[in-house]
Amino acid sequence: MPEVIFRLDSNKKFKDQETLGHNRWHPEIPPVATVKPGDVFRVDCREWFDGAIKNDDSAQDILQAPLLTVHTLSGPFGVEGARPGDLLVVDILDVGPIPQEDSGPLAGQGWGYTGIFAKNNGGSFLTDQFPDAYKAIWDFTGQVATSRHVPGVAFEGLIHPGLMGTAPSAALLAKWNKREGDLIATDPLRVPPLALPPEAEHAVLGGLPADQWARVGSEAARTAPPRENGGNQDIKNLSKGTRIFYPVFVDGANFSVGDLHFSQGDGEITFCGGIEMGGFIDLRVDIIRGGMETYGVSENAIFMPGRVEPQFSEWLAFSGTSVTLDGEQRYLDSHLSYQRACLHAIDYLAKFGYAPEQAYLLLGAAPVEGRLSGVVDIPNSCSTIYLPTAMFDFDIRPSASGPHQIDPGIGAPRADNA
Amino acid sequence: MPEVIFRLDSNKKFKDQETLGHNRWHPEIPPVATVKPGDVFRVDCREWFDGAIKNDDSAQDILQAPLLTVHTLSGPFGVEGARPGDLLVVDILDVGPIPQEDSGPLAGQGWGYTGIFAKNNGGSFLTDQFPDAYKAIWDFTGQVATSRHVPGVAFEGLIHPGLMGTAPSAALLAKWNKREGDLIATDPLRVPPLALPPEAEHAVLGGLPADQWARVGSEAARTAPPRENGGNQDIKNLSKGTRIFYPVFVDGANFSVGDLHFSQGDGEITFCGGIEMGGFIDLRVDIIRGGMETYGVSENAIFMPGRVEPQFSEWLAFSGTSVTLDGEQRYLDSHLSYQRACLHAIDYLAKFGYAPEQAYLLLGAAPVEGRLSGVVDIPNSCSTIYLPTAMFDFDIRPSASGPHQIDPGIGAPRADNA
Amino acid sequence: MPEVIFRLDSNKKFKDQETLGHNRWHPEIPPVATVKPGDVFRVDCREWFDGAIKNDDSAQDILQAPLLTVHTLSGPFGVEGARPGDLLVVDILDVGPIPQEDSGPLAGQGWGYTGIFAKNNGGSFLTDQFPDAYKAIWDFTGQVATSRHVPGVAFEGLIHPGLMGTAPSAALLAKWNKREGDLIATDPLRVPPLALPPEAEHAVLGGLPADQWARVGSEAARTAPPRENGGNQDIKNLSKGTRIFYPVFVDGANFSVGDLHFSQGDGEITFCGGIEMGGFIDLRVDIIRGGMETYGVSENAIFMPGRVEPQFSEWLAFSGTSVTLDGEQRYLDSHLSYQRACLHAIDYLAKFGYAPEQAYLLLGAAPVEGRLSGVVDIPNSCSTIYLPTAMFDFDIRPSASGPHQIDPGIGAPRADNA
Amino acid sequence: MPEVIFRLDSNKKFKDQETLGHNRWHPEIPPVATVKPGDVFRVDCREWFDGAIKNDDSAQDILQAPLLTVHTLSGPFGVEGARPGDLLVVDILDVGPIPQEDSGPLAGQGWGYTGIFAKNNGGSFLTDQFPDAYKAIWDFTGQVATSRHVPGVAFEGLIHPGLMGTAPSAALLAKWNKREGDLIATDPLRVPPLALPPEAEHAVLGGLPADQWARVGSEAARTAPPRENGGNQDIKNLSKGTRIFYPVFVDGANFSVGDLHFSQGDGEITFCGGIEMGGFIDLRVDIIRGGMETYGVSENAIFMPGRVEPQFSEWLAFSGTSVTLDGEQRYLDSHLSYQRACLHAIDYLAKFGYAPEQAYLLLGAAPVEGRLSGVVDIPNSCSTIYLPTAMFDFDIRPSASGPHQIDPGIGAPRADNA
Repeated sequence: MPEVIFRLDSNKKFKDQETLGHNRWHPEIPPVATVKPGDVFRVDCREWFDGAIKNDDSAQDILQAPLLTVHTLSGPFGVEGARPGDLLVVDILDVGPIPQEDSGPLAGQGWGYTGIFAKNNGGSFLTDQFPDAYKAIWDFTGQVATSRHVPGVAFEGLIHPGLMGTAPSAALLAKWNKREGDLIATDPLRVPPLALPPEAEHAVLGGLPADQWARVGSEAARTAPPRENGGNQDIKNLSKGTRIFYPVFVDGANFSVGDLHFSQGDGEITFCGGIEMGGFIDLRVDIIRGGMETYGVSENAIFMPGRVEPQFSEWLAFSGTSVTLDGEQRYLDSHLSYQRACLHAIDYLAKFGYAPEQAYLLLGAAPVEGRLSGVVDIPNSCSTIYLPTAMFDFDIRPSASGPHQIDPGIGAPRADNA
Repeated sequence: MPEVIFRLDSNKKFKDQETLGHNRWHPEIPPVATVKPGDVFRVDCREWFDGAIKNDDSAQDILQAPLLTVHTLSGPFGVEGARPGDLLVVDILDVGPIPQEDSGPLAGQGWGYTGIFAKNNGGSFLTDQFPDAYKAIWDFTGQVATSRHVPGVAFEGLIHPGLMGTAPSAALLAKWNKREGDLIATDPLRVPPLALPPEAEHAVLGGLPADQWARVGSEAARTAPPRENGGNQDIKNLSKGTRIFYPVFVDGANFSVGDLHFSQGDGEITFCGGIEMGGFIDLRVDIIRGGMETYGVSENAIFMPGRVEPQFSEWLAFSGTSVTLDGEQRYLDSHLSYQRACLHAIDYLAKFGYAPEQAYLLLGAAPVEGRLSGVVDIPNSCSTIYLPTAMFDFDIRPSASGPHQIDPGIGAPRADNA
Repeated sequence: MPEVIFRLDSNKKFKDQETLGHNRWHPEIPPVATVKPGDVFRVDCREWFDGAIKNDDSAQDILQAPLLTVHTLSGPFGVEGARPGDLLVVDILDVGPIPQEDSGPLAGQGWGYTGIFAKNNGGSFLTDQFPDAYKAIWDFTGQVATSRHVPGVAFEGLIHPGLMGTAPSAALLAKWNKREGDLIATDPLRVPPLALPPEAEHAVLGGLPADQWARVGSEAARTAPPRENGGNQDIKNLSKGTRIFYPVFVDGANFSVGDLHFSQGDGEITFCGGIEMGGFIDLRVDIIRGGMETYGVSENAIFMPGRVEPQFSEWLAFSGTSVTLDGEQRYLDSHLSYQRACLHAIDYLAKFGYAPEQAYLLLGAAPVEGRLSGVVDIPNSCSTIYLPTAMFDFDIRPSASGPHQIDPGIGAPRADNA
Repeated sequence: MPEVIFRLDSNKKFKDQETLGHNRWHPEIPPVATVKPGDVFRVDCREWFDGAIKNDDSAQDILQAPLLTVHTLSGPFGVEGARPGDLLVVDILDVGPIPQEDSGPLAGQGWGYTGIFAKNNGGSFLTDQFPDAYKAIWDFTGQVATSRHVPGVAFEGLIHPGLMGTAPSAALLAKWNKREGDLIATDPLRVPPLALPPEAEHAVLGGLPADQWARVGSEAARTAPPRENGGNQDIKNLSKGTRIFYPVFVDGANFSVGDLHFSQGDGEITFCGGIEMGGFIDLRVDIIRGGMETYGVSENAIFMPGRVEPQFSEWLAFSGTSVTLDGEQRYLDSHLSYQRACLHAIDYLAKFGYAPEQAYLLLGAAPVEGRLSGVVDIPNSCSTIYLPTAMFDFDIRPSASGPHQIDPGIGAPRADNA
């Protein structure tokens, strides 16, 4: 086991740990540890809601999930010699649930969860069709996930960090706040909101002196979106063996990591769509001096996925176009066409006996592929979603004999949107 | 070789063939042939511009490409016993360039082309950055494509039909015309246009009696977009061995096929972004009686990709978010985030010596994957594009030693947007 | 289609073609054509028995298969500038059944065959357990093979040439004759024989002057085994996209090709175990000057398989050790342990209702993998055989519910060993 | 973490642990623990030489490796309700090096080793060409192995147990002793020996009463070979996610496991050819009642490999035939043809600057594939070995520019055969 440079005790809350992490992006949050290029080390990660979501059969916790407190990030970690303009090379050597703990109240202790967020508390990709809150608990057996709330499926996890990135410079942070503020201003009362402004009350700012928290918290960026620094990209393919290259914006790079997922489908469509968990990640870092200019990487991560992703040779795929459910034609809207492809998959799975929300939770959590198949054929973009057929206990393919009927079991817990 | 039920002579134009195909969707276009469930047969296909694009080093033909004449479809083919509400099962047994002809003036005779369309003639996914017309000619050697216009790469084709679908019913056609007309009406003079209305002058309507062409042509749908019937989905994964399920809207299903591609990247981003060619396709059809209701497939195709796609184990991937190049924050716009990911890939490849348009043409033509990685992390969606590293003759990975410099050669022919 | 440099008319026997091929290895057989490094060309190939095996339900033809006449090779082809000591680079650009002919009396016209040879006529890998002759006819639908003689399975072909190689020098030929003669001499009457000595009567020697046939035929090597020059290696992975490197032993390399297989399992265990067919192969050649010494390749081919092999993600595997069926312990005998693994697979498949010979024919023809898993654990080697589960129409996996029972249909035709 | 039912303390020798395992097969060795069908549990495993091999730069320890003491097995584990005739279903949920220990003197603490055994101490697959002892130490970084003794390569481990199996019945044990004794008797003084007879002095027999050790030790089977019960099969594909079915010969099945490998090539050709290590394995067991008869599995394991093996899309392969290095023709000897293929690979790698023993060690340890390509083409079988090209830091492919030259570094430690 590599040296643990950020350790978490499963019996303590995130804010009570020996070393305090953070839940906002800001250049003034000091590194909790510093590593050298070439170093290999382990980082513990807390699940993004710090234990608020329980391993039970109620969705009340999802309904009331404390979105102001996320994400509970480990870091920042400084890298000796890193300077703005460099590329930070991060190798994900290993990543998994909390080691040696396979039962307990904390997601990552042998289990994880997927949530569909209620429309009034964040919403989701299909929030108009699914305004209420739902939850699925997934149990881990080796690398395989199964759920009492979504029967009939079992799949190998594509374990990855949902969120990793470098600290923004002050100038970059200002740019974020300006552009996101401008967007919010176009419809400030929208539900769900268009974006999340800085919020000081629930900000956690690591080792920053206490007298600075109010000021910094009022300007620090929320961690929900991915941005130039990487961030909450939720790219399911950042699994073991992946090498990622991040732009460096501050001396030392100051990168952070968190929001581990045991698995996730492309898009993380239920919002809390991966299988959320705490755990560990083993990393190795390096620097390409001046790499941002040399390789033209001014923003966003580039990466090379690892070689040990679960392999599936058979898929069942659904397509969608950019026409709304109401029949309105939109112009080349890939977001919409992916929504329609997902809805088609849900309609299909419902014919096998799944409740629509069970199907939706499955698409959020399982290693499904979402592709931008056609983006130029005016006025309709075409998006596609691919489900590995091997994850089903039964034959999911269309045939003359009609769909097999599953027993949906106890179903997915639900809590009404308030 | 299965029986050819739609034969094309490479020496004749599409309209001069013994059997006339069509280039519009309309329920009244009569089948050119009828097959039974279980039948296996071959269909010849003409490239979508019917020979207007030449194997030369000028992009003048792309600049003036006759968009009103497309797509030159083979069919319709009736299926005995198919009725509205059924699912039409189509197996792609084989598909390839024009058999036994590997040189000649017609795309598909040993070569194909990729075009970036000029802004005033259709445009493309990145038309604001690339307003002019460009062309790349690809030579086929076995299943491998190479180009004198894009040096340093070679890749196995993921050969597929860009367009396949069933005939719309009159009611469905009316719905299309209404909703697309409504969209056009919001900005009728837009360049490029929002959508393409019916157009009778260049309509080709197969065996429809001549006195009906004016009326039918004035209401028949253009073939550019994918719609409920499948159509121009440009899904690169519909390659050999794929089984597709189409909704049936008229008696006999009346399905048509065309727009073959030797290869294509996800999105077909240069508009004419696959490697366009004529060729053949061997099909087998079957029916799932009442399958639309049984399986909840009311629209759009569902499919199971084949098992012989080219395999790549290493990829270099780029990510993008929904912030415009001008810095404006957009709300969860996956179309935009994919544009940004593509632009990042182009910026990167430019550092190796490629002209930006060469990189763009490559992304359109090569088997790159485009994924909707994050679609819920407000306000930024995250899209990713994956390039197989093995298609480059040199090491494309970032490293401390900096990018290898290619010789860009004669470059991609260009014609200025008029 | 590349230029055809060796053309075969399906209506004529191998010896009656315009250009005569050969069925023996000898340095004096003159090239039928000469190509340059970099050239791309097509070669037609006749199935190895020149039409003796029929598409019917009798195994009488397999029982009496004319082994003295094989293999009907296309070539030799000279390569300009190739000299002894070079490596001949051969790219398999494409390979398939007889183009544009999908029915007819010749294997390759839409069908192929697998035979279990009788013990008195060649035998097979499991000849003691299967002394009689059996046949299975396979029908090609696109790249998929199915058989009325082996129901319940369908698989994508891994199409390849069973035999390709360069001409031996006179010295190398003498070495072959010496060592194989020495082996035969140890048991000259063995049935099946240990090896096949030169045989002049049925030798076909291409363009060699008629007055030389008797002499050359009496010293030319039979084509059954693989040897230093490549030859009948029956490596199933030499499929489309493969690059092979052969040692060059004579000026011009003089390479030949034949024995095409639509598919084959590792080992080609039924002797005539691939799915035998005629067809075409498109090749490109090049030379690495002095490559034998530079790369230490003094004999046998080295190769890089292509990227479009059928992909299977689930396999059912069987293991065997080097103990005979009679219980005798042999010392690290991987040949025996593979026989035992194959017999275990046959025993297993028999429980699903297959006749043992049906199972045996399937293992010979389908894309099964045979691996040398353990070769040092005295006294038992361990070999394993892997069957892709997706090729079965039913669930082939072991479970508490017991094996599904197939209808074995008409079974595999049989002819008693005489 | 599942419950540990067999725990090992890294600071104690195998014989000093709280629970004692075994190193011989015998039906009277009592279970150390009993599990129920469906149970999930963890077993610690000690590396096969119990710490005798050091992480240093000398091969003296390999030269003198104590072969009489192996293998240090964990178990036996009884399964409630298992009876002779059943199939024991074993799911490998996870397997890896010693958790939370990445440095220390014991293989599995962040490192492992590969040894070429000296001819007088066990020998190896190519012992005539490599009579001396050699060693390579591999360091683990995440799932990747690298070695100071074999530079220029890095590969993902295909982690698996080399040895797992059920206890033999008394009758089966007697059969083993008889047949192996008969073999030994044919050449009792052979070096290396043909097989290993029972040996009581170094036998470790778990919880068997002390007064029984002499008798049982004198008849218990050595663990070197694979046999009807599974045993030391060294099948590299038994990695995470694999389901294995073992015949049951005694009440409770009494299965044992050990000999973990971080990686291994097909054949484990250097004898101690995998990357040897201690570690843990998480298992789940089940029973198919009467499965041996139902599925025709009278002996040897059948299995379904997992879905997370490292993926490689490009390979460089070598072939060999059954002619000895001295030029003697052998009859269809796949063991020999695989030796020749391995030697060809070694010859090739030597041209890049590797010492032959470095190449040999690499073939033993890396995830190379060994296939029985042709087994019927008299008199030559054809075996092939496939090396993933991506594991090399440099371009390993043949080309006109000749082989890249590596720096072989300090080389592999050697100790002369005594």
